[in-house]
Amino acid sequence: MKLLIGDKNYSSWSMRPWLLFKHFGIPFEEVLIHLYVPGTKPAILAQAPTGPGKVPCLISEDRSATWDSLAIAETLAERFPQHALWPRDPMARSHARSVSAEMHSGFGDLRSNMWMNIRASFPGKNATPGALADIARIEAIWCNCLDTYGGPFLFGEFSIADAMYAPVVMRFKTWRPVLSEASAAYMDRVTALPAVKAWIDDALRETHTIPYQDVCP
Amino acid sequence: MKLLIGDKNYSSWSMRPWLLFKHFGIPFEEVLIHLYVPGTKPAILAQAPTGPGKVPCLISEDRSATWDSLAIAETLAERFPQHALWPRDPMARSHARSVSAEMHSGFGDLRSNMWMNIRASFPGKNATPGALADIARIEAIWCNCLDTYGGPFLFGEFSIADAMYAPVVMRFKTWRPVLSEASAAYMDRVTALPAVKAWIDDALRETHTIPYQDVCP
Ligand SMILES: N[C@@H](CCC(=O)N[C@@H](CS)C(=O)NCC(=O)O)C(=O)O
Ligand SMILES: N[C@@H](CCC(=O)N[C@@H](CS)C(=O)NCC(=O)O)C(=O)O
Repeated sequence: MKLLIGDKNYSSWSMRPWLLFKHFGIPFEEVLIHLYVPGTKPAILAQAPTGPGKVPCLISEDRSATWDSLAIAETLAERFPQHALWPRDPMARSHARSVSAEMHSGFGDLRSNMWMNIRASFPGKNATPGALADIARIEAIWCNCLDTYGGPFLFGEFSIADAMYAPVVMRFKTWRPVLSEASAAYMDRVTALPAVKAWIDDALRETHTIPYQDVCP
Repeated sequence: MKLLIGDKNYSSWSMRPWLLFKHFGIPFEEVLIHLYVPGTKPAILAQAPTGPGKVPCLISEDRSATWDSLAIAETLAERFPQHALWPRDPMARSHARSVSAEMHSGFGDLRSNMWMNIRASFPGKNATPGALADIARIEAIWCNCLDTYGGPFLFGEFSIADAMYAPVVMRFKTWRPVLSEASAAYMDRVTALPAVKAWIDDALRETHTIPYQDVCP
């Protein structure tokens, strides 16, 4: 399988399925496509003509394309039942799907104000009321899950739900909103995972930049 | 199982899982909560305190809550394997998940400019460039799926993917953007489904209104 991704420093949606492949040891070939240059969309569409021309995009052995990070996650969970990509318990699983789908369709204020840029540091910036409300909801989700399932990750062991929130951890490290101790400790555990460390290390070594995302006016 | 939904005239996210229950004949109790009144959020949170206080929300026999329309759809697909909520073929299924997750996380311009209001008619209004780009992508998805799988629905028989796009069909009937014949024919087939007709009939009979959504400045 081939996974098309964007620049690791910036591509929050790409980070999610990449972490799943790495963490669960699922073999894959990574194809990195630089974002926001004229060649970006053509390069993606060349491999997945019926998709939206965005990353991440999974190209399977039969050359069929699966796009959108959440669809890739569900597809991996189904293809690799030997790995607990979702929690094994049905009630925990529907809860994990709830917080994952909530992340997938929401948190627009956080996304637009506090974009992912792993190399950057913008502490205290862009803390709009909408972004703060999103952050409060994320902390409530984390706190409830860690309490209910006992940690160290949202549903016990690392699962798709943590992969969905890992880019948020990166955002919080860049923008440094005020967070509870429990949130900070969860962020440390996510950051210490070998798969997450590997993504961050690659991001730090990248040289392609998206200039307007490197400044915070 | 209990499904909390919003007003049928307006609640696009609620329509999706409701159609799945109805179309596949899965028994459920419907609980309608009027939207955007002071009591809305407390009423939802009373039944699902760990959720975001939004509809739709599924309350299972064990009283656990599953929220977010896509998570409810995946949970139903898992609990009722006797019904083909997703297409049975694995490649078609990952394709169906792709277009469903793409809808779930995208199309912000269409959503904000052409909200769902089944009783209203705003032909030609709010056709911003962003909304038109979203509409073009939706037509490309419909066209590709209908061609690939042969219709009458996106992946052959009615599936979660059609439920995800059914609120868009309602929007198009209200805002009447210029559409291809193939799109118009698909919309007719969706509208003629007994479950969709039942939702529309209920919406037409409702008396609760959301005044600012009933006008298009
Ligand atoms: N909902 C999609 C979003 C994908 C997305 O927006 N990807 C961005 C990069 S992070 C992209 O490809 N942008 C390039 C473009 O739109 O041309 C997902 O979950 O995969
Ligand atoms: N992504 C969610 C969105 C749910 C949503 O935004 N629901 C709206 C009504 S359609 C709502 O409950 N609004 C009430 C509020 O936010 O207070 C889903 O798919 O279920």
